[in-house]
Amino acid sequence: TRQTDDTAQDKELHVRTTLRELIIYIVFLVILCIMTFGMTNSTMYYYTKVMSELFLDSQFPDTKNTFRGMTTAMDFWRFAENPLMDGLYWEKWYNNENVTEDELGFIFYENKMLGVPRLRQVKVTNESCVVHTDFRDNIKQCYAFYSESLEERTPFGLKNGTAWEYSTEDELDGSSHWGALTHYGGGGYYLDLAKRRQEALPQILELKENLWLDRGTRAVFVDFTVYNANINLFCIVRLVVEFPPTGGVIPSSTFRTVKLLRYVTAMDYFIMACEGIFVLFILYYSVEEFLEIKKHRLSYFKSTWNCLDVIIIVVSVVCMCFHVYRTFTVDEMIERLLAAPDMYADFEFLGRWQSIFTNVTAIAVFLAWIKVFKYISFNKTMTQLSSTLSRCAKDVGGFTIMFLIIFFAYAQLGYLIFGTQIKDFSSIGSCIFTLFRIVLGDFDFHELEAANRILGPTFFMTYVFVVFFVLLNMFLAIINDTYSEVKADIANQKSEFEISDYFKKGYEK
Amino acid sequence: TRQTDDTAQDKELHVRTTLRELIIYIVFLVILCIMTFGMTNSTMYYYTKVMSELFLDSQFPDTKNTFRGMTTAMDFWRFAENPLMDGLYWEKWYNNENVTEDELGFIFYENKMLGVPRLRQVKVTNESCVVHTDFRDNIKQCYAFYSESLEERTPFGLKNGTAWEYSTEDELDGSSHWGALTHYGGGGYYLDLAKRRQEALPQILELKENLWLDRGTRAVFVDFTVYNANINLFCIVRLVVEFPPTGGVIPSSTFRTVKLLRYVTAMDYFIMACEGIFVLFILYYSVEEFLEIKKHRLSYFKSTWNCLDVIIIVVSVVCMCFHVYRTFTVDEMIERLLAAPDMYADFEFLGRWQSIFTNVTAIAVFLAWIKVFKYISFNKTMTQLSSTLSRCAKDVGGFTIMFLIIFFAYAQLGYLIFGTQIKDFSSIGSCIFTLFRIVLGDFDFHELEAANRILGPTFFMTYVFVVFFVLLNMFLAIINDTYSEVKADIANQKSEFEISDYFKKGYEK
Amino acid sequence: TRQTDDTAQDKELHVRTTLRELIIYIVFLVILCIMTFGMTNSTMYYYTKVMSELFLDSQFPDTKNTFRGMTTAMDFWRFAENPLMDGLYWEKWYNNENVTEDELGFIFYENKMLGVPRLRQVKVTNESCVVHTDFRDNIKQCYAFYSESLEERTPFGLKNGTAWEYSTEDELDGSSHWGALTHYGGGGYYLDLAKRRQEALPQILELKENLWLDRGTRAVFVDFTVYNANINLFCIVRLVVEFPPTGGVIPSSTFRTVKLLRYVTAMDYFIMACEGIFVLFILYYSVEEFLEIKKHRLSYFKSTWNCLDVIIIVVSVVCMCFHVYRTFTVDEMIERLLAAPDMYADFEFLGRWQSIFTNVTAIAVFLAWIKVFKYISFNKTMTQLSSTLSRCAKDVGGFTIMFLIIFFAYAQLGYLIFGTQIKDFSSIGSCIFTLFRIVLGDFDFHELEAANRILGPTFFMTYVFVVFFVLLNMFLAIINDTYSEVKADIANQKSEFEISDYFKKGYEK
Amino acid sequence: TRQTDDTAQDKELHVRTTLRELIIYIVFLVILCIMTFGMTNSTMYYYTKVMSELFLDSQFPDTKNTFRGMTTAMDFWRFAENPLMDGLYWEKWYNNENVTEDELGFIFYENKMLGVPRLRQVKVTNESCVVHTDFRDNIKQCYAFYSESLEERTPFGLKNGTAWEYSTEDELDGSSHWGALTHYGGGGYYLDLAKRRQEALPQILELKENLWLDRGTRAVFVDFTVYNANINLFCIVRLVVEFPPTGGVIPSSTFRTVKLLRYVTAMDYFIMACEGIFVLFILYYSVEEFLEIKKHRLSYFKSTWNCLDVIIIVVSVVCMCFHVYRTFTVDEMIERLLAAPDMYADFEFLGRWQSIFTNVTAIAVFLAWIKVFKYISFNKTMTQLSSTLSRCAKDVGGFTIMFLIIFFAYAQLGYLIFGTQIKDFSSIGSCIFTLFRIVLGDFDFHELEAANRILGPTFFMTYVFVVFFVLLNMFLAIINDTYSEVKADIANQKSEFEISDYFKKGYEK
Ligand SMILES: [Ca+2]
Repeated sequence: TRQTDDTAQDKELHVRTTLRELIIYIVFLVILCIMTFGMTNSTMYYYTKVMSELFLDSQFPDTKNTFRGMTTAMDFWRFAENPLMDGLYWEKWYNNENVTEDELGFIFYENKMLGVPRLRQVKVTNESCVVHTDFRDNIKQCYAFYSESLEERTPFGLKNGTAWEYSTEDELDGSSHWGALTHYGGGGYYLDLAKRRQEALPQILELKENLWLDRGTRAVFVDFTVYNANINLFCIVRLVVEFPPTGGVIPSSTFRTVKLLRYVTAMDYFIMACEGIFVLFILYYSVEEFLEIKKHRLSYFKSTWNCLDVIIIVVSVVCMCFHVYRTFTVDEMIERLLAAPDMYADFEFLGRWQSIFTNVTAIAVFLAWIKVFKYISFNKTMTQLSSTLSRCAKDVGGFTIMFLIIFFAYAQLGYLIFGTQIKDFSSIGSCIFTLFRIVLGDFDFHELEAANRILGPTFFMTYVFVVFFVLLNMFLAIINDTYSEVKADIANQKSEFEISDYFKKGYEK
Repeated sequence: TRQTDDTAQDKELHVRTTLRELIIYIVFLVILCIMTFGMTNSTMYYYTKVMSELFLDSQFPDTKNTFRGMTTAMDFWRFAENPLMDGLYWEKWYNNENVTEDELGFIFYENKMLGVPRLRQVKVTNESCVVHTDFRDNIKQCYAFYSESLEERTPFGLKNGTAWEYSTEDELDGSSHWGALTHYGGGGYYLDLAKRRQEALPQILELKENLWLDRGTRAVFVDFTVYNANINLFCIVRLVVEFPPTGGVIPSSTFRTVKLLRYVTAMDYFIMACEGIFVLFILYYSVEEFLEIKKHRLSYFKSTWNCLDVIIIVVSVVCMCFHVYRTFTVDEMIERLLAAPDMYADFEFLGRWQSIFTNVTAIAVFLAWIKVFKYISFNKTMTQLSSTLSRCAKDVGGFTIMFLIIFFAYAQLGYLIFGTQIKDFSSIGSCIFTLFRIVLGDFDFHELEAANRILGPTFFMTYVFVVFFVLLNMFLAIINDTYSEVKADIANQKSEFEISDYFKKGYEK
Repeated sequence: TRQTDDTAQDKELHVRTTLRELIIYIVFLVILCIMTFGMTNSTMYYYTKVMSELFLDSQFPDTKNTFRGMTTAMDFWRFAENPLMDGLYWEKWYNNENVTEDELGFIFYENKMLGVPRLRQVKVTNESCVVHTDFRDNIKQCYAFYSESLEERTPFGLKNGTAWEYSTEDELDGSSHWGALTHYGGGGYYLDLAKRRQEALPQILELKENLWLDRGTRAVFVDFTVYNANINLFCIVRLVVEFPPTGGVIPSSTFRTVKLLRYVTAMDYFIMACEGIFVLFILYYSVEEFLEIKKHRLSYFKSTWNCLDVIIIVVSVVCMCFHVYRTFTVDEMIERLLAAPDMYADFEFLGRWQSIFTNVTAIAVFLAWIKVFKYISFNKTMTQLSSTLSRCAKDVGGFTIMFLIIFFAYAQLGYLIFGTQIKDFSSIGSCIFTLFRIVLGDFDFHELEAANRILGPTFFMTYVFVVFFVLLNMFLAIINDTYSEVKADIANQKSEFEISDYFKKGYEK
Repeated sequence: TRQTDDTAQDKELHVRTTLRELIIYIVFLVILCIMTFGMTNSTMYYYTKVMSELFLDSQFPDTKNTFRGMTTAMDFWRFAENPLMDGLYWEKWYNNENVTEDELGFIFYENKMLGVPRLRQVKVTNESCVVHTDFRDNIKQCYAFYSESLEERTPFGLKNGTAWEYSTEDELDGSSHWGALTHYGGGGYYLDLAKRRQEALPQILELKENLWLDRGTRAVFVDFTVYNANINLFCIVRLVVEFPPTGGVIPSSTFRTVKLLRYVTAMDYFIMACEGIFVLFILYYSVEEFLEIKKHRLSYFKSTWNCLDVIIIVVSVVCMCFHVYRTFTVDEMIERLLAAPDMYADFEFLGRWQSIFTNVTAIAVFLAWIKVFKYISFNKTMTQLSSTLSRCAKDVGGFTIMFLIIFFAYAQLGYLIFGTQIKDFSSIGSCIFTLFRIVLGDFDFHELEAANRILGPTFFMTYVFVVFFVLLNMFLAIINDTYSEVKADIANQKSEFEISDYFKKGYEK
């Protein structure tokens, strides 16, 4: 949204135009902020917290372990028989009275279970990997890491019912999942739990008795969605237990708290109004930018500010489209679901897109904030600071390359030395994050020392000396030197016509 | 307290005046420090600690959970039946002997319970919120977040007695409370516990049996006050359990340890004397400032030091007034209370004002310390440093604005992306604090990574790079450059007549 | 140890003298290091760890609490009946076989109990404090904080035996103790435990049954000393449970691992030889410094290096004297003790002095290291750096004063606002340490926020902004500017005759 | 790999040569990275984690303690009877069905136990140390720290079988171990556990009943190796329990996850191809460097880059040799082992060398990355930065010496004052690491304060002031000043012919 007329000649006109643009932009930003703050609120965090604590932190009665601390397949059954049943079925009040028929099916008596929960597992086939020739006589079976091509699809165990017969992703209308280890398909062997506890528990016990989880199992999913009418929020829950080929289990979970039904309270309608204004703004800016592009052609894209404008507009339009799509889909799904309450309700897909929508919006707002800098440079002090930043960009960039080479050399060193022992060094990505965190003082020296008594401390000390003592100070030296130069330059320049002059002049009239 | 006569002409006189003023000011400061150190001492911390551990960290016998870890309404009853009873009633010694009649009613055998403890709950009505049209058939009831306008005021359950009938804030002479979630009114359904355990426990059980806590409950308060004669301190205890509409509970607590009876020991009377001297000082400074204001009129307020003087005086006068008021109120309350020991004693109001009094005094003392800088600038090194600070103020200020824009852009980004998952990003205020703490190295990277595998690390790395590596170094560059300039300037100036010269001269005489 | 002849004229001679002195000094330093490393070794830490874990981390069978987590008087009895008995008496092997008579009285079967353990308590009298007039009718008894003048000295409870009758510090030959709350006298009511578990446990139970600990109790001490012949170390144990007048208890402990018998193994005799050489060195330096003082009189003390020399010599002589005294006392004590094994062995006094001896030696060694800087300044780079430090000392000093005023203002503010709630702000000393730690990134923001929702974050943010962003950068600006100056100055100077020239010259001959 | 022809005269030729070399070098680096990333992957970490949690974090049924928390010999038996048995023998599925004969001997049903596990202990003789004369009558036995010369070699207890009769390191074909306390020999008293649980448990109980662990025991080792065919990885497990002469126990463990069988999957064969190319590269570079050495003789070694080349080549050749040796040994071992499955399989030696191989390779890769800097200096910004670094090297070096003296003085002070109380100060090495970590903000102030109420905070505050506030800023001042100088110098120079010119020229043609 650069002013269409070039006003470089007339200083006063330039300032006036800038000022008008700034005011319009601030109104736009305020509308945007209201909209996004209307999208989220701290209730959402409390909802996530309450739901996740219920399932993840409840102790198993015998071992006092929890979902988060699971280590064996046995632990999964301990979880399924107790915390899961207690968490899903709230059929008695705290004084042991039964709840009424109407109140059945509400977690915490407040959160309506939508449809029924589903247990699903994916498996790999026995022949999914090759045993080394030396061991072929002793080790007959081999189960690799999960990958869709190695998936087991034959019936097993009791060989009847969905729990023992494979259903494809299409049949289930399911969605794939990116777990701690790998990416899992949406098909598998599944079981929909009953609506009452006294029916669901035998279902679980039957699975356990017939060894539903075996060596081929690679992941178990527990999926369900609840809706809280008090606060008009959905919580889409997925509990995942991965079974790596190493043995043992790796639990993880997703609790997506989303606002799928947007317009219920008065506040919601106010937000709706803001959204309307926002659409108008986007239209206005679109037209303006379109005219500018038409005028300046390719040279338009040479300005970073213009590119930013285009990105903001495009992202906004995409978000608006999703917004409309979501509104219609949800209504339809809920109607279908309430008509057939014993069906499993798959909100996973919708929840994921809602999350992506939120993230994209968030980035758009961030960019909108950054654009404020375009208008801020009319003040002398500001100019001094921003030109310091832009002038040292080249040196900082060059230095960042040097920095990154050393950084990456250390990351790879750490990965090879500590990768098998320390979680924070177990992949090259983690190594980079870990080294970055060391600079900020967030590290566990004792872990390094335990992993390798000699190389651990050596690695740490040389890294800190080189990066923290020497390289980080280079950043400072570059900025410091540039600032001195810029300050000297500006002191020599004659002051331009500034905003403050504009106000002074207006005042004098 | 700027000198009334302008002494700019005569250097020596100026120095002598400054010196005299400084000495008077130091005496004032010493008196002030003695007074404030008389207000508080580390016993207070131990008292708070002992009392809070008793109620917050005692384990429930069955689940080994504590007050701090409560998650369901059932946990509240577990708490009320065991740790609360054990904490309130100390009727046996450790060898199982009963205590004497005189020794009854002392927590830890030392802390006299003033009056009786009170349980109080606030509720919201069933119609406090709107269910979305799609769900109206399935979800019949809706209980919103608490707000005073939505409060339930009809009798419920047994429908007799204060526990089941609503009392207004005025009837209870209660005070409102600002909890973790929202602000609660002072009315509600309450129950005063009996003075003996064998009577109090059935009271609790009756509440539990009749479902005192139901879906409409939004907060339960347990209030009582104890007095420890050994150390002459009151501890005003409020345990709060909030029931958000999400389900689950959020426990919190306030333990206000205050010294409401000021003058008991010899030390207390010494403090009293200091307070007397302090009043005289305030009178003296008030008169001085009054004369100055009369002389200089509005131009008086142009000096920051003068404003500081006025603030200190005003705050001191307000504190003194409260001090006198408190002394009388407490005496009266205690007499009334000891006359009717079965009554509930509401010290909440007094405790809160005493806390505010302490905080206001603390700020006054802080400002009094800052004023020392007014006198310190007579030394050359000091001048050099303080003029560096004041000269770079404009640039630092300008830069702070740039800094804050980027900071706020990141805060909003973090709020939208992580707000539903991470406590530290669950409100925009928390986001600001969290980003600030990252700069100091206090953060939980793994939490960010768990909340969003891609945006989490990206957010963190770019933030740290921009703010920690680049922007923070700008601060340094600004200060560094200004210091060099100031040092060069001062080296060129001729030395003024300084304090040290004054002493030298005096010595030479 | 400055060279006696002034060699300022002859550069070459000066360098040669310096070099000779440096070599002698390095020999001295090596001897000193060998000696001090002979005084301590990492076995000591393991011994402390093993002993402290045994008593402090063993769980009480019923509540699973430990010594460290004690909160009530009842907890003390739980501790005394179980972990204490189990820790002191090792009468069975792990297969339940009894140990032989010879092996009785060894903790962990390895550490000989010297004499018997002693339980001791100190109490205050009922009239130790004044109850406020308002409460005189309701509160009859008042027990103040412990102070020696308020100590209870009358018999109580069973009124017979040392446990119920007061013994003075002189009678017990005891020593006072500086606890978490205050300083306790060495007298009190005490009980020496029997040598066998079956006799000791009834002793404890008798105390408990007769309410040995009552409202007047202010501290209980459990004292004993063990000797490990395998590693020739003593461990002097003191477990302290303080009973503040607030109610509740505060546990603390001291485990002093000391080497009281110095010469046993071959290594010990090597250390002895070093100690001999050290004495000779001290003699040599004493004479040298004595001659210098005689020559230069008072002007001798104008040099910081000379003062350092004198301090090192004096401290060394004091240490040597204690060393001799200790050697004789210990031998005598042990002989006396082994003759009467049922007596309580008080090593507390010796242990404390041994600790002080170690600390004083440690400081002497530190100063000896600092003296190396005297010799290091012959190199040009070194000169440049050390003259930067000395030239900026004045500015850094001046700035430190400014810094400290702001720092102290914040400390007092924090003390008054958070003192009653947060341990780290509960005394003015702790406040100073806490604010210092904030600068290094070691803080608990959530605690501040919980203590005061508004002032907590405000305090934190302004403090960090002022101190971390602004003031700390001033330090840097001062050092940076001075370094530039010094470097420019030195570049202009002509190079002096340096050590390197000396070697070059020697090489050329 | 510096270009053989000197091309200093012809700028353009020089650039072209550099560019060609750079491209070749990048190919080499990519091959090297592929190879090393083929050596390790994050599965290894999961394998280590799963195996170590199984043995180290399983709770003993009665005390709820774990291997990591062991403190007494009794705890070892608790461990051996429960978590060890449960971890080694997986003979039932979670529904209590027995596994088939074929599936026996797989930990987690996935990891084949190679051979049988071995328990081994080392002891010291009764006369291994000298009791001080004072105690000779009371203390008859003395067991020193372990050292091979003091090792007990006589039969004890039942005096029959390997568990009670000494076997030498040669007989066992064992390897020594560097534990937390000291270095242990490979001999000792050992027991190979049976292949079924019902036989192994009585073996353990017999040892316990006959006091296998006595006062002379200094360490117990549990050794076994498992192979996971799913992921083709070995995990070589060693659980160590050390018994220091202080009493108590110190548990530690090593879980080496290694890929001993290299070529199984298709990916493995791709890596094999890369290894082939790597060998060719090494040959090429060897020849090149050989020619250069021949030409330049000793002056060749004056260039750091040349030395780096030689080091990289030598290390690579050594690694390749080990690689070949390992491949043959493993095959042979596995064949021998599978022929006699009841034998103990000692992979300890191979595992250790494989770890060393990985570490050496890691360092070679690190050096290869550093060499990239040789080529990077053709860009002006880069030159400016790297010449800043090299020009300030002398000053930084000199300053580092000053820094280290102060650092070491503090380290020794900390060692003497806190060494007996705090783990992080219990050896001089730990002290150095700890002081280094303080600078980065990773410290435990409360521990220091608890160890010595006065010297603790003083030590900490002075250290931080001197090192963090003053000395660290010197680093910055040095770099800052040098950068300004270099920038000024380079601005004055005429730009050399640069890479960018080369491309420009190529473009213009
Ligand atoms: Ca930090």
